[in-house]
Amino acid sequence: MYRTHTCGELRSAHQNKQVTLAGWVQTVRKFGSITFVDLRDRYGITQLLFEESLNAQLDASPLGREFVLQATGKVNERTNKNPNIPTGDIELIVSEFRILNKSAVPPFTIQDDTDGGDDLRMKYRYLDLRRNAVKKNLELRYAVGRSTRNYLHENNFMDIETPFLIKSTPEGARDFVVPSRMNPGQFYALPQSPQTFKQLLMVSGYDRYYQIVKCFRDEDLRADRQPEFTQIDCEMCFVEQEDILNMFEGLVKRIFKDVKGIDYTETVERMTWEEAMWQYGNDKPDIRFGMKLCNLKFPAHTFPSKENISSLIAGEFAVFNDAETVIAIAIPGCSEYSRKQTDELTEWVKRPQIGMKGLVFIKCNADGTFKSSVDKFYSEEKLKAIAEATGAQAGDLVLILAGAEERTRKASSELRLEMAQRLGMRRPDEFKLLWVLDFPLFEYDEEGNRWVARHHPFTSPKPSQIETMINNSPVIENAAEYLKHPYAGIKANAYDMVLNGNEIGGGSIRIFQRELQEKMFAALGMDKEEQQHKFGFLLGAFEYGAPPHGGIAFGFDRLCSILGGSESIRDFIAFPKNNAGRDVMLDAPASIDAKQFDELQIRLDLKN
Amino acid sequence: MYRTHTCGELRSAHQNKQVTLAGWVQTVRKFGSITFVDLRDRYGITQLLFEESLNAQLDASPLGREFVLQATGKVNERTNKNPNIPTGDIELIVSEFRILNKSAVPPFTIQDDTDGGDDLRMKYRYLDLRRNAVKKNLELRYAVGRSTRNYLHENNFMDIETPFLIKSTPEGARDFVVPSRMNPGQFYALPQSPQTFKQLLMVSGYDRYYQIVKCFRDEDLRADRQPEFTQIDCEMCFVEQEDILNMFEGLVKRIFKDVKGIDYTETVERMTWEEAMWQYGNDKPDIRFGMKLCNLKFPAHTFPSKENISSLIAGEFAVFNDAETVIAIAIPGCSEYSRKQTDELTEWVKRPQIGMKGLVFIKCNADGTFKSSVDKFYSEEKLKAIAEATGAQAGDLVLILAGAEERTRKASSELRLEMAQRLGMRRPDEFKLLWVLDFPLFEYDEEGNRWVARHHPFTSPKPSQIETMINNSPVIENAAEYLKHPYAGIKANAYDMVLNGNEIGGGSIRIFQRELQEKMFAALGMDKEEQQHKFGFLLGAFEYGAPPHGGIAFGFDRLCSILGGSESIRDFIAFPKNNAGRDVMLDAPASIDAKQFDELQIRLDLKN
Repeated sequence: MYRTHTCGELRSAHQNKQVTLAGWVQTVRKFGSITFVDLRDRYGITQLLFEESLNAQLDASPLGREFVLQATGKVNERTNKNPNIPTGDIELIVSEFRILNKSAVPPFTIQDDTDGGDDLRMKYRYLDLRRNAVKKNLELRYAVGRSTRNYLHENNFMDIETPFLIKSTPEGARDFVVPSRMNPGQFYALPQSPQTFKQLLMVSGYDRYYQIVKCFRDEDLRADRQPEFTQIDCEMCFVEQEDILNMFEGLVKRIFKDVKGIDYTETVERMTWEEAMWQYGNDKPDIRFGMKLCNLKFPAHTFPSKENISSLIAGEFAVFNDAETVIAIAIPGCSEYSRKQTDELTEWVKRPQIGMKGLVFIKCNADGTFKSSVDKFYSEEKLKAIAEATGAQAGDLVLILAGAEERTRKASSELRLEMAQRLGMRRPDEFKLLWVLDFPLFEYDEEGNRWVARHHPFTSPKPSQIETMINNSPVIENAAEYLKHPYAGIKANAYDMVLNGNEIGGGSIRIFQRELQEKMFAALGMDKEEQQHKFGFLLGAFEYGAPPHGGIAFGFDRLCSILGGSESIRDFIAFPKNNAGRDVMLDAPASIDAKQFDELQIRLDLKN
Repeated sequence: MYRTHTCGELRSAHQNKQVTLAGWVQTVRKFGSITFVDLRDRYGITQLLFEESLNAQLDASPLGREFVLQATGKVNERTNKNPNIPTGDIELIVSEFRILNKSAVPPFTIQDDTDGGDDLRMKYRYLDLRRNAVKKNLELRYAVGRSTRNYLHENNFMDIETPFLIKSTPEGARDFVVPSRMNPGQFYALPQSPQTFKQLLMVSGYDRYYQIVKCFRDEDLRADRQPEFTQIDCEMCFVEQEDILNMFEGLVKRIFKDVKGIDYTETVERMTWEEAMWQYGNDKPDIRFGMKLCNLKFPAHTFPSKENISSLIAGEFAVFNDAETVIAIAIPGCSEYSRKQTDELTEWVKRPQIGMKGLVFIKCNADGTFKSSVDKFYSEEKLKAIAEATGAQAGDLVLILAGAEERTRKASSELRLEMAQRLGMRRPDEFKLLWVLDFPLFEYDEEGNRWVARHHPFTSPKPSQIETMINNSPVIENAAEYLKHPYAGIKANAYDMVLNGNEIGGGSIRIFQRELQEKMFAALGMDKEEQQHKFGFLLGAFEYGAPPHGGIAFGFDRLCSILGGSESIRDFIAFPKNNAGRDVMLDAPASIDAKQFDELQIRLDLKN
């Protein structure tokens, strides 16, 4: 070893001990004839003191930032202690040192507040990884992984590796494919998830499976998507939905405890998908704060339900009259917003990303009066009644959006989150879990006038609705009335876990009967031949004693980023790709050799 | 949950308890009016007893092999206990049962000695995985993984994920490549190992890294090779070879302890590559037994060294006189081999796989006499002297091979292993570790008259030989005398761990200086431009304070198979591929859609 101790290890108790450290030069400070060096490694920073006697050697081989240094000497208790670092009580009085490697001046500073831009830091990722901020993220990631493995091990789960070179069965997202040299003209695909394999493992009786595993999706990358990402992938036999919910809220609570020191003792809230959509406008609500949506046109679905609301807004205001949906949100403590502020909010909802035509507000003044942008259409009593219906208190500001159903709901959800952000209600150190349940099994695809699986084709309908599915044809005779088709009402035995407004995991109880699985494939437009080609192995497996089973997969990158209080998953991946799917450090992807094309028996067919 | 207990859990202490089990029907046995069913799950087998009252229901829905069954009833202590299984003291007297799923008759029996052939079992891998023999292998694999993670965690290693979509830099083995849709004409490669990434993590100061990670090599598959395989991949900072050897023999000993219950307290033997080649004829000797090679032409290298041997064989026997190499092995206790047996051995060495012209033997009879196939060339005294030189005892059989150096050495190694196998010396339950050290850094490539890296281009020469490497040109002026080139004698700071004659791990201390790395690349025939294109990021990283570092990678599949006492890694992989790289269960690889070709902007270019 080049060292006897790490740079985070020495304390007063080591006083007078002869030790050797090795690490990176963080700073060099010269005071008259003596030199202080902060030496850094993964474990910490230790101050080195070079006395005058070493000056000749220091002059001959001067130290610079990020040099790799080995130093031997005696541990000395400092008179001038630094309480901010664990090694702050001591320093090393160097008797000998050796430069193990030099360093050019880094293109950016290796500090929490670095001066490096995003592109530069990605190109020199190996330097960016030295920064404490990034290191802390990867340490957290490791801790989350370890906590996960321990919990699952204690609960009898087995880590079983599934293959990476599989078969392309594009359903939804695109597969990455891999040409096979040994089977010319044929391709492997990289797995979008180990879904079918984990189900086969259940058929094989492995009872409880898990894997922390890379998955691949060739999607157009939005901000914060990666073509390769990591899942905590789990599956259990002989379980019902309730068993899965209990097991995996246990997992997340354990991670909170192990990684963040948080005792999450509260019951994890549960909400149906319908409730989430009506009350929060989206299927992964952030429930760290209230500000639920009050639907003024469909009062039966609002919370608390106010049957009389819709009559309240009925009046002369054409915008509300004509709108498919009118949604109000009571924003606490904002009644004194200035004209400038409400104008700015109006502009905010009119941005193309939000796409509303305008914003109506009611100020619930502290003195009990009400003031609104639609004063001329509604009396103060009516304004008061509307405001009260939304649950607003004196001092609150009621914001109202009106328009087409889906857009208005989405905009309301965005507005709610934006206001919470502005009001400091989205605290990264507060964690609130939620199960969203009872998703629709199918979504309607207008273009093809057909059903698509909302979760995936292996998700079971609610047990009570299996008959409905088996006994009805999936064909949609009348596109305009697709909502009346029996399939439109079928709910899935599926569940998402939501943390602070982010879906961190999702899963379902699976279909385990061949007949039902075939019906599902048929409902999605797959004929027998296609079913056999793509999923013959799974249908076959279901013939040989498939047990009831279900599972869940957590987005590991996302889970880590939320626990780390960050918006970006990239900060929690050692070597991430940029939004064009490129690794700018490696400069990949790249061209390949003619010999490789030749061996693979493929060639380029570039559009231009 | 469909069950209150597992099928491996119930004991006498559960007597009279009402329980529900779920699992697979292993056997159904009818005795008069009662029926016994063995119900199986991952955890064990429990006997179910169906009394006469259930006969009507059993007749209406008869049970078959591999049916999925849920049964509720009372635990009963058996009068007729089965001591062979942990649940053998009890049975479940069934009061209610439900068939959760039926099963077709499996294409082979789900038993340790199955009647299924290899192809059938691979096609129905999900059924093969139900067999206890296969399950035990995957459980062992999981235990090895868990033991590894625990040991490395306790030693401050961090699991850090490295990317799968990287850049193709073919060196040695072929890369699998992945066309990038978002970057048309460009390809990712799947990693052959995370080598450069783990080195970058050391440059980044992560100090101790590990990963249990899939790697990919597009090689022509020999028996028991897989295109995707798993490595335990490790790297450490500020270490010398000795530190790595200590740390990782510690890992393997820990695995022995955790997984096999074996206290491997012996010192792990060490041997140089030269010693291995001279004394065992190969670089991964099985040292569970002796029978070292005695080189009769280069006695200085034999063990024990017998300076006078070469004069012993000098004589009238032209075969020995003309041979480049003559190697003898003393086979214990085989002096009474019949003519038939020695003839058969002669045929064995003449097989094309071995390729020798013949076999000479000396029988060291129990009565002290010597009898040989070359009696007419050597006196009994000479035979005795030769036999003694090989270390043979009375009762042993000395086998002698002669021929060209490399072939004879290889054949001797094969013969040694074959004789050990025949004599039962290769016991799967005996484990013997060995470090092989001091490999040559370079191998000579005759075709290109150039050097290739024996390990990989990142391996450091011995510290004392760095100067030799830096100060000499790699150019080989005189191909015939390449052995005289200074590079031929450079040894690598590399090490292999050998277990029972299998290389289970290998690694090296790495180059960490840009100048030396460039010299290495140049020695392998890479010009500056190619170096920059392929490894510019690594050369760049070495400019910013790269620390001394080194590491190792273990072949996880192989390690598991040896610990499991098997020759085949396939038995330890949940979903392996066959020798043509095919997954016969999935029927992958397979053709892809025209749309996929179109999006990827590639097309086939089949040779015929």
